[in-house]
Amino acid sequence: MAEEFHGYAAFDKEGILKPYSYTPKPLGDEDIEVEISHCGICGSDLHTIRSGWFPTIYPAIVGHEIVGKVLKKGSKVTDFNIGDRVGIGCQVYSCGKCDECNVGYNQLCSKMVFTYNDVWKDAEGVPTQYQAHGGYADKIRAHSDSVFHIPKEISSAEACPLLCAGLTTFLPLKHHKVGPGNKVGIVGIGGLGHLAIQWAAKMGAEVTAISQSDKKRDEAIKLGATHFMNASDPNDVKKFTHSLDIILTTSGDSNTDWTKYMNLIKNRGTLVLIGLPDAPIPIPAFAFMRFIKVEGTLTGGSQDMKDMLEFAVKHNIRPLIQKVPMKDVNEGVKMVLNGKARYRIVLEN
Amino acid sequence: MAEEFHGYAAFDKEGILKPYSYTPKPLGDEDIEVEISHCGICGSDLHTIRSGWFPTIYPAIVGHEIVGKVLKKGSKVTDFNIGDRVGIGCQVYSCGKCDECNVGYNQLCSKMVFTYNDVWKDAEGVPTQYQAHGGYADKIRAHSDSVFHIPKEISSAEACPLLCAGLTTFLPLKHHKVGPGNKVGIVGIGGLGHLAIQWAAKMGAEVTAISQSDKKRDEAIKLGATHFMNASDPNDVKKFTHSLDIILTTSGDSNTDWTKYMNLIKNRGTLVLIGLPDAPIPIPAFAFMRFIKVEGTLTGGSQDMKDMLEFAVKHNIRPLIQKVPMKDVNEGVKMVLNGKARYRIVLEN
Repeated sequence: MAEEFHGYAAFDKEGILKPYSYTPKPLGDEDIEVEISHCGICGSDLHTIRSGWFPTIYPAIVGHEIVGKVLKKGSKVTDFNIGDRVGIGCQVYSCGKCDECNVGYNQLCSKMVFTYNDVWKDAEGVPTQYQAHGGYADKIRAHSDSVFHIPKEISSAEACPLLCAGLTTFLPLKHHKVGPGNKVGIVGIGGLGHLAIQWAAKMGAEVTAISQSDKKRDEAIKLGATHFMNASDPNDVKKFTHSLDIILTTSGDSNTDWTKYMNLIKNRGTLVLIGLPDAPIPIPAFAFMRFIKVEGTLTGGSQDMKDMLEFAVKHNIRPLIQKVPMKDVNEGVKMVLNGKARYRIVLEN
Repeated sequence: MAEEFHGYAAFDKEGILKPYSYTPKPLGDEDIEVEISHCGICGSDLHTIRSGWFPTIYPAIVGHEIVGKVLKKGSKVTDFNIGDRVGIGCQVYSCGKCDECNVGYNQLCSKMVFTYNDVWKDAEGVPTQYQAHGGYADKIRAHSDSVFHIPKEISSAEACPLLCAGLTTFLPLKHHKVGPGNKVGIVGIGGLGHLAIQWAAKMGAEVTAISQSDKKRDEAIKLGATHFMNASDPNDVKKFTHSLDIILTTSGDSNTDWTKYMNLIKNRGTLVLIGLPDAPIPIPAFAFMRFIKVEGTLTGGSQDMKDMLEFAVKHNIRPLIQKVPMKDVNEGVKMVLNGKARYRIVLEN
């Protein structure tokens, strides 16, 4: 009888999650099967279950902040032992050989398989009948290059948000070699922003946490921010004008006042867009005359993941999480949707 | 009796130019007075006379691609002699001491005075009664740091467009150290683009000229482009997808399909916006996931100007121009407005 994995899937764009069983891809020589203990809820999960970005392949089990134990492994897997505590992020496969993988950008591998809402391909790159399903489940299979050891200092539940939210916020700071002397702004103090503040502060930068109200001022300072800017207060906006080297925006939608953020950046500074809205981003043309760069980012490669976990251990950086039993997954989703998460929900089997 | 300079000014946003005389700023110790022989017509001139970007200070004499001879000089000017052939670009003053000037970005100097539609300040930075007027005139005064020797190899008329259009297109290619092995796209083959193609080609890059029709194909190849892409031809667009390291867009308005251009760029490549539209630029969010950077530019600093002129001499780069007598300035403006310039109009006294 075919093996079956069991999880909670969305069946249409209503996005209600219901029990669902599926036949996993066969365990390849280089694959690992993980028994999932925890899975974080990411904003991307919510977009996907409701076909927010583009049509989803239903039924869809989402979740790409996955931690568990190695249950089985292929014959060629040498880096992992049965029982090891491991994590899986946004992808379950990258080829390891293409131009992108060769420069450490596994997340842009043309053969990559996303952790969910994707389909496994065969050796020739032809789609198979095996759908890739995520971590709101009991088990998952992934190529061992996309599986990472979780350091013993980090609990399984706390490791989850690091695997997507952590990596995503760490990478642009790593790319820009942020350190002492840099002035970094973090827009949005949520699942992404509360980690970005910690990374930047521990890298030695002077961090300004930027929020739409004063509500999170104390928390931001506690997380390591030197300054707090209330973006709704014109005096605050004036005070920080042209003062920051780099801004990471972890939130933003079609109503966002991009001109306001661009004005906070010094000449020749950088705006990094992390929380990408669905709609095109109307960038004010005149800001470009000050040589400001606008760039995006996307999770990170395998080495970035290792660097991030090492940095988290060394500087004692952890996400703030709330645990929810896996069976109450719809409750967890609702908390994120309603902005009630402080700051990341982790599902627990 | 007060000295008077004579030129052609716009008096309202109709933008019709009529004779106008004004009292120039007193000649300072470090200033130079230039007898204008030629002045190029730049797109910015047209925006300004019609208050296209923001309200213009009328009457306004525009023109910032100015070539002429040194007529007078202040007592502390040592780099120039009376009779020297010199050029003035987009600014007539930068302080030479601020953080921006110190890193070569005179064009961002906080005390800078634009060549026109601006007001001279006194030593304390307080605006004086002396308006800054441009090169559609018989004479102009500028600080000697904003005046440049024109190499003997370059004719006065041909030098004009280099001082703004040339510098503006040269700088981003210099910043990005474009050279052999780079694939550069130039969008728009006009006053800016026809120079950008030449710079990039002579720097050793593989240049793709991108236009909205096939009309300028032969000319683009003659200017040094290796490839020509008709942006209205879906096959061409497909052929060049993800193929370019850097694109310079010298044209663009609210109807521009930015997604199309972003798709031509390789992962981690750069889009440089040169011809800035008045309206915000709707950048497609998903393009940022490929780590594409979007940046602007603004003319260049003093050293950039010298580098550009030297490069033009060394590689025999010249703009294609049409000369128009200064008294027929309104005809010249009309040619640019109607897209009849091939590729730059130069007024001649």
